[in-house]
Amino acid sequence: MAECKAFAKLSELAKNPTDLTAQGVLTPERVRRYCCHGEIFNLLYSCQRVTGEVLDALQELSDECLLVEQFQKMRQGAVLNRILNFPSENRQVLHTACRDLFSEKPACAVATKQAQAELDKLKIFLRELEQGSICNEKGQPFHTLIHVGIGGSDLGPRSIYEALRAYANTKRTIHFISNVDPDDSAQVLAKVDLNRSLVLVVSKSGTTLETLANETIVRAALAHAGLNPNKHCLSVTGESSPMDNPDRYLRSFYMYDYIGGRYSSTSMVGAVMLGFGIGYENLLAFLEGANSQDNASAEKDIRKNIALLAALLGVWNHNFLGMGTVAVLPYSQALHRFPAHLQQCDMESNGKSVCRDGNTVQIKSGPIVWGEPGTNGQHAFYQLLHQGTEDVAVEFIGFRKSQRKKDLIIQKSSSQQKLVANLLAQSMALAIGKSDENPNKRFPGNRTNSILLADRLTPKTMGALLALYEAKIVFQGFCWNINSFDQEGVQLGKELATELLVVMDENRSEGTLVEAFLDVAKMHS
Amino acid sequence: MAECKAFAKLSELAKNPTDLTAQGVLTPERVRRYCCHGEIFNLLYSCQRVTGEVLDALQELSDECLLVEQFQKMRQGAVLNRILNFPSENRQVLHTACRDLFSEKPACAVATKQAQAELDKLKIFLRELEQGSICNEKGQPFHTLIHVGIGGSDLGPRSIYEALRAYANTKRTIHFISNVDPDDSAQVLAKVDLNRSLVLVVSKSGTTLETLANETIVRAALAHAGLNPNKHCLSVTGESSPMDNPDRYLRSFYMYDYIGGRYSSTSMVGAVMLGFGIGYENLLAFLEGANSQDNASAEKDIRKNIALLAALLGVWNHNFLGMGTVAVLPYSQALHRFPAHLQQCDMESNGKSVCRDGNTVQIKSGPIVWGEPGTNGQHAFYQLLHQGTEDVAVEFIGFRKSQRKKDLIIQKSSSQQKLVANLLAQSMALAIGKSDENPNKRFPGNRTNSILLADRLTPKTMGALLALYEAKIVFQGFCWNINSFDQEGVQLGKELATELLVVMDENRSEGTLVEAFLDVAKMHS
Repeated sequence: MAECKAFAKLSELAKNPTDLTAQGVLTPERVRRYCCHGEIFNLLYSCQRVTGEVLDALQELSDECLLVEQFQKMRQGAVLNRILNFPSENRQVLHTACRDLFSEKPACAVATKQAQAELDKLKIFLRELEQGSICNEKGQPFHTLIHVGIGGSDLGPRSIYEALRAYANTKRTIHFISNVDPDDSAQVLAKVDLNRSLVLVVSKSGTTLETLANETIVRAALAHAGLNPNKHCLSVTGESSPMDNPDRYLRSFYMYDYIGGRYSSTSMVGAVMLGFGIGYENLLAFLEGANSQDNASAEKDIRKNIALLAALLGVWNHNFLGMGTVAVLPYSQALHRFPAHLQQCDMESNGKSVCRDGNTVQIKSGPIVWGEPGTNGQHAFYQLLHQGTEDVAVEFIGFRKSQRKKDLIIQKSSSQQKLVANLLAQSMALAIGKSDENPNKRFPGNRTNSILLADRLTPKTMGALLALYEAKIVFQGFCWNINSFDQEGVQLGKELATELLVVMDENRSEGTLVEAFLDVAKMHS
Repeated sequence: MAECKAFAKLSELAKNPTDLTAQGVLTPERVRRYCCHGEIFNLLYSCQRVTGEVLDALQELSDECLLVEQFQKMRQGAVLNRILNFPSENRQVLHTACRDLFSEKPACAVATKQAQAELDKLKIFLRELEQGSICNEKGQPFHTLIHVGIGGSDLGPRSIYEALRAYANTKRTIHFISNVDPDDSAQVLAKVDLNRSLVLVVSKSGTTLETLANETIVRAALAHAGLNPNKHCLSVTGESSPMDNPDRYLRSFYMYDYIGGRYSSTSMVGAVMLGFGIGYENLLAFLEGANSQDNASAEKDIRKNIALLAALLGVWNHNFLGMGTVAVLPYSQALHRFPAHLQQCDMESNGKSVCRDGNTVQIKSGPIVWGEPGTNGQHAFYQLLHQGTEDVAVEFIGFRKSQRKKDLIIQKSSSQQKLVANLLAQSMALAIGKSDENPNKRFPGNRTNSILLADRLTPKTMGALLALYEAKIVFQGFCWNINSFDQEGVQLGKELATELLVVMDENRSEGTLVEAFLDVAKMHS
């Protein structure tokens, strides 16, 4: 990116970014013009510190870096998960194929065919559960599913299930176990009826330490309850992984090596749990929303492509205006875990220092992503957003209507109206600021933000939201010329943990913990 | 702080911070020396980029800024919540008095007497619930409590309850409603038995918009179920607030204006819910842990005072080494919401730009605080911590033993051992890094971090942990000479939301939302 013509232009423009607090800048005309319209979402970006000139330069950057072309090649199956001249994963990147089910000509037919095959298996399995041909030892239906996974096999599925609980089958419950902390599994096992529970173990490699430990604990609990674990456990894993074993699992659903964990929510990793929890039809609507958004991300005009525009506004804020973090603030309690998923998807994808050609990056790559739902956050950390010394790029997400339609008019407005009024008010307050004689009541303004707005958080909307952010992350990775699809940064910690466990095993008292730390320090100092 | 002699010294030292990756630096000897011992916690800080010289300068800074003296004055009731020469709240800051119950001579006897009186009321109330003299219309005991609050009345209590669920009365359940999003209340109301539910409404002023809206919705649901809301509702509020009304509430418990919302977890704001959920004895242990930590924070030697040392290491990383964010990473699933509470407590306290004398701050004040539990985070955002271009100050929290003691040895180690081995390994990996011929497998190291370590997460430990972080935040505020106890930054958004609701009320169709935004833009442009 640094070698692009547009880069120099943007660096120049960044010296004097628009002053949103100045008279006559944030006008209704600007609000109307700086709105990008999508099928499901609109992006209101009048409170970004941009002008037409900046947008033109961002368009040039997008064109020079071939962002959309690369996105399309990705969808078609190009081997983008690699580092030139060095050993790397060398894989295709085809999470988009999992939902490319709704047209005659999918972008990558082979992968979509594999995805369809797994969906068909799932559909049959769900019908068998429904009809009772799959049931527990006593002939009773399963009403609980325990989803065991970590990272990409946990955060995405969990946050989507939370987002769509309003659409869940009320006779069924989902629990999640992820952490190797034994209190995590103990807490879930203390409240479920194992007789009526399926256990879904999710690991692409079939060798994830935490997941195997938790599976072993749950299997022991099943056995302890007099049940046959092999009749309660399901797996989502790579074909022919150690977890692809019909003796140990009632069913195995496959994911393929061209789907990275953090991009796997629309694969079987998310689909099996969602199919059980919210039903097959809602699952399909979710996939359709994601696919529709993928198609929309192929537009080259940044003013007409929400994901691309969001990516470039992010690059502007991060690389040119110097903001190190992005706060994702959904005005929807159902999205309470979605920022945690994005934190994973974004930071694990773009928290890198090596370009795809093996050289060290010369500019900043991915920012820190964090956030909590509004209005809760307003009563928590917004103080810093408004008056602190750290400048944060804010991404609001909002919906015109509630999911559950249970609301009351109190003091002339419904709770939903209060929610949305607060969202809009925060966006504007951050941008325009306020002067005051009391220095403690002054707001500097010019705190950049945008609002992603849709009608209602439905399965289809959720699919689109997920795909929109996935595309945003990928576009940014292309822009920084990094490999957004590997995660070499997790290896060193794993290696040292293995060394430590060996040292600890030699003396199994818990008091020796710091001694083990000392020993490993000794090996490495 | 900028005018302190130590400031200049630290600025000089920051030009060449210790290189933790160099041969012979991170030795067992260093690990042993850089450990601060407290009654409940130890702070392992060998992986901070400090030397004896840096620590000496931080000690000078602490002495020059009178950090401990101010902390002690705070506990004794000094009016520290104010801005000189300008209208401000002008209040004492006495959250520490709520737990100063265990000595003959509390630091502020008047406030502690008030706290004790409320605790006595609570004790009686809990006994009446236990004995059945308080029960529902049918004479059945209440088994559910719905806690309604937001911000300081929600995040602290919620995160502490989650942390101590292992100690909860299994016959009782707690639910929380906070967001004005109507889906938040709808979701909780869909799953509780209102017949058997108490509703605890928490608002110091008795006028918090979100809380009143949610209370109204829950009262309507009670009435709809044929129940008398006034016989199910409790309140925690200021004496003589609109919510201090025996006609509408079964009981009211008081909090006082000298306790800020985000510091109120050990007041009735947290105590009523905790007393119901984990019992009075556990509540007392929690308060005792907090008090014990408050006493320990009076030590002037930074090498012997964990909270003070953590505060100063934070200042070193933030103001001198330039890190804008702090990641709090507990290796305990029970603490999964504790980072969100700290995010509130820290950022609302110290996200300021005005000094206590009314002048603008000349240095950076509070950082951004974020985090998720390990090992989950290892499979999510740690990639960026290890190999990204943003430098993050990491604060690990860990425990030698699990809460629930349900564990299995798998491949020679228990899950608890795996958890702790990963914690130690991450700390070291971040610090020492790793060279490699493959640039994608290189770890730069020198990523500063420390570990707060205790034996087990009990009620007492949780109290100490909370008080430790509260003191850390307050020490930093003193260092930056800001008022950590007000929150003027939340006002502007509230005002604009009120304006917007008026505009929206004039045309109540939901489609007019963006039009309302335009109208308010017009008013302010």
